Amino acid sequence: QVWVRARVATSRKQGKALCFLQLRQSMHTAQAVVFAKEGELVGFAATLPRESVVDVFGEVTLPAEAVASCSQSAVRRLYCVSRAMPELPLQLEDAARSDEQLAADPSLTRVNQDVRLNHRVIDLRTAANQGIFRLQTRGAPLGPARLLSPLGFTEIHSPKMIGTASEGGADVFRVERDAYLAQSPQLYKQMALMADLDRVFEVAPVFRSENSLTHRHGTEHMTEFVGLDMEMTFFEHYHEVLDMLDRTFCAVFDGLNQSHQEELAAARFTRSETDERARARIRERLDARGPESLAEHADTEDMGTEDEKLLGEIVAELHGQDYYIIDKFPAAVRPFYTMPDPTDPRWSNSYDIFIRGEEVTSGAQRVHDPQMLLDCAKEKGVDLSPIYSYVDSFKYGAMPHAGGGIGLERVVMLFLGLPNIRKSSMFPRDPKRLNP
Amino acid sequence: QVWVRARVATSRKQGKALCFLQLRQSMHTAQAVVFAKEGELVGFAATLPRESVVDVFGEVTLPAEAVASCSQSAVRRLYCVSRAMPELPLQLEDAARSDEQLAADPSLTRVNQDVRLNHRVIDLRTAANQGIFRLQTRGAPLGPARLLSPLGFTEIHSPKMIGTASEGGADVFRVERDAYLAQSPQLYKQMALMADLDRVFEVAPVFRSENSLTHRHGTEHMTEFVGLDMEMTFFEHYHEVLDMLDRTFCAVFDGLNQSHQEELAAARFTRSETDERARARIRERLDARGPESLAEHADTEDMGTEDEKLLGEIVAELHGQDYYIIDKFPAAVRPFYTMPDPTDPRWSNSYDIFIRGEEVTSGAQRVHDPQMLLDCAKEKGVDLSPIYSYVDSFKYGAMPHAGGGIGLERVVMLFLGLPNIRKSSMFPRDPKRLNP
Repeated sequence: QVWVRARVATSRKQGKALCFLQLRQSMHTAQAVVFAKEGELVGFAATLPRESVVDVFGEVTLPAEAVASCSQSAVRRLYCVSRAMPELPLQLEDAARSDEQLAADPSLTRVNQDVRLNHRVIDLRTAANQGIFRLQTRGAPLGPARLLSPLGFTEIHSPKMIGTASEGGADVFRVERDAYLAQSPQLYKQMALMADLDRVFEVAPVFRSENSLTHRHGTEHMTEFVGLDMEMTFFEHYHEVLDMLDRTFCAVFDGLNQSHQEELAAARFTRSETDERARARIRERLDARGPESLAEHADTEDMGTEDEKLLGEIVAELHGQDYYIIDKFPAAVRPFYTMPDPTDPRWSNSYDIFIRGEEVTSGAQRVHDPQMLLDCAKEKGVDLSPIYSYVDSFKYGAMPHAGGGIGLERVVMLFLGLPNIRKSSMFPRDPKRLNP
Repeated sequence: QVWVRARVATSRKQGKALCFLQLRQSMHTAQAVVFAKEGELVGFAATLPRESVVDVFGEVTLPAEAVASCSQSAVRRLYCVSRAMPELPLQLEDAARSDEQLAADPSLTRVNQDVRLNHRVIDLRTAANQGIFRLQTRGAPLGPARLLSPLGFTEIHSPKMIGTASEGGADVFRVERDAYLAQSPQLYKQMALMADLDRVFEVAPVFRSENSLTHRHGTEHMTEFVGLDMEMTFFEHYHEVLDMLDRTFCAVFDGLNQSHQEELAAARFTRSETDERARARIRERLDARGPESLAEHADTEDMGTEDEKLLGEIVAELHGQDYYIIDKFPAAVRPFYTMPDPTDPRWSNSYDIFIRGEEVTSGAQRVHDPQMLLDCAKEKGVDLSPIYSYVDSFKYGAMPHAGGGIGLERVVMLFLGLPNIRKSSMFPRDPKRLNP
C-alpha cells in the first residue's frame, strides 16, 4: 500500500462501477483502478481533467500479463492536488506521436512547432522531451564538469556584458549604456589562461543578434544558445588539445550510450559509432571527392553547408561513423586570432568536429605572440583597439594554447538525430521568439 | 632530469658565475640555478623579465634544508617561450601581500582595487586568486552538479533574453528589440517543474542594472553575477526543500574544508563551523534581541543590513557558527509568488540562508495555485499580463514546489572571508566597469 503523487494522463470510466486512471510521473506510467465499492470515488475520478495532479493511496498489484512500463494500483483514497483546465491548448498524446506514426496515418492530429513552443510547459512533458532534457544534464554540461575537472580544468564564469563587440559587430545585441552581450567567451577564456589558470571551461549562454530565420536550412540560428567552451595550454603540439576534445566527446557519447538507454529510447536515438575516428586533413576530404560537388573547391576555400553534409555521408560510408574531426582549415576562413600553420601560412592550426555532416565544435591553436596577433589582425582588417586588454594579456608572458567552442543544443540535436534545433532548447530564442 | 615550462617569478644574478631563477606554476614555485659552466646561459637568464614563460631542462635536486614549496633544479638548457614586457603595470609581489603584511609595514607598495581590475590577468596570478578561482570550480558550481544530479536534479539553461522585466522593471537591462536581460531564472525554473522535470538547477549569469555603486556597504552590487538556482517539487512540506539546500551547503563546505587545504590556505581561510545549525524562526531572532538595535523591529518588518550583521554576530556567539538559516519571513517583504503561511497570512513559507551575517540564499515555497497567484499579484500591485505563460503553466496541473537562489560570488566571498565581492568575480561588472 503506497501513496503516489502523479499526473492524470487519462481517466476512463467503465459503467458505474469502474474507472481506470492512467497515472504519469515524468517518463513512467502506471494504471490505477477505482472500484465501485469505493463509493463516490468512481464519479470523482471520472471528472478529473487530464494533466491534473493527484495523490493516490492504494494497493500495488502486478497484472497477470506484463504491460509495458505500467504497474497497477487499486485505489483506496484519491485527492486532487491541482485540477488542470478542462481544455488544454494541446493534447499530450498528439504531441507525443512519433514521425513514423504520423507518416503512417495522415488523419492523426499534428501539433506544429509554434503551438508547441507557445505552450512549451505542456510540450516538455512528452517522454521524448523528458528524455532530451534529462539527458542534457548527464551528457553535455556535466560531461565537461565531471570529466574535465579531475584533469585540472577550472570552470570559469566570464562576463556576458562587454564593452565592445568582440568578434565583428554585425550580429551583436547592444545593451543600454554602450554595453554588448557576448557572442562567445573566446577572449576571456584565453585571458584566464594568461592568468595561469592553465585549463578552463565554461558553460554559459551566448548571444547572436542575426536577423535571418533561414540560416542553414532553417533548422538553426538561435539568437541565444548555450556555449560549452574549453581552452588549455599545451606543451609540445596543439594536437594535445584536439586529443582532449576528442576524448571528451567520446567519453560523453559512450557514457550516454551505456547508462541512459531509457532516455535515449524515449528520444528515439540510434547509437552513433565513435569507436574509430577519422581525423582528416582538409586535403583528405577533397581527395575523397568522388561526388561531383566537392570537386569544385580550391584547396584553400571553405566548404559550404551542403558540401559538409555530403562529406558527412562520405565519412559515414567510408569509415562507418557519424562523428569525425577535420584538422587544418585554410587560414583565410578563420578568425584573426587563429595560429597559422608554421610550415605553410595558407593553412592554420584549426579544426572542426562534426556529427553527421554538421559542425558541432570549432577550435584552433590561438596566436599567443602579441606582435603576431597585431599583424594578423591588421591583415584581416580587424581593429584591436577596443580589446586592448586582450592584446595586452599576451605581453606579460604568454603560454601556447588552444581550445574549442561547442554548441550544446547542436550536439544534443545531432546526437539524438532531432530535426530542429529548437527541440534541444528548453525555451528557444530566435529572431521572432522571446516567449515564453 | 626534466623539462619544465614555467614563469620566471624572479631572476637574480650573483656575480658572473651564477643566476638564480625562481620559477612559478600557478600556486607552486621552484628554484632553478644556472651555473657559469653553462656558458652564456647565466647572462641570458639574467635578462629575462619577470613573468616571462620559459622552458627549462635540468636536474632536480632536493636542497639539504627544507625550503617551503620549493624544489631546486640545476639548469642545463633554457629557452624563453614568451618574453614579458620589461615594465609590468603591477608587480606580482606587491599584489600578493597579505593585509597583515601591509598593516605591519606602511612603507610597502599597495596595489589598489582599480589597478588590479584594470590589469586583472596579472592580478589573477597571485596565489590567493589562484586559490579563489580554482576553489570555485570544485566548491560552488560543481557542488550542485555533483551533489544534486544523483538526487534526480536536471540542470537547465533558461533564456537570459526575455520579453518583459520579470521581477519589477527598475533595475533591468534592456536589449534592442524590446527584450530584457533576465534578473533571475525564477519564473523559468518554476515552469520547468511544471513541465515535470521535478527537480532542476541552473548555474548562469543574471543581470541587475542598478545605478548605485554604494549598495550595501560598498562591497557588493554587481551588475552581472552568477546565480546558482535550484527548485524542486516536494511531497508533504516545504522543509523537504530547505533540508536539501541545507545539506547541499554543508556538503560543499565540508568537502572544501577537507580536500582543498592548499587553496584555502592561499586564500587565508579560517574554517567555518557548520556542524550545528540554528534554523531560527524570525521571532527567535527578535527574542534573542539583547543588543539594542534589534529591538526596534516590529515582528512583521524586515531587518536592515546592519541588523543582519549584528544577528550574525549574535548567532556566532550563541551557537558558535557562521552559517545559519532563518525561516518564515513576513509576507509583506517577499515577492508575490511566495506562498503565505497557511496558519497565519502575515507570515510566509520563506527562508534565507546566511553566512557571517550576510544573506547568500533567498528562497521560499511558491504559490502553485493559479487563482491564488493572481490574487497575490493583485494585492501587491503586480501586473501579470506580460508573463501570462508563467501564470498559465499552473493551470495545467501544478505540483507544490519550493526552491532558492544562491549568489555564487557572495558565497565564495563570505566563505573565504574576502573583503570585497569583486575579489570573487573573475572579471567583475559594476555600474562603472565593463572592462576588461
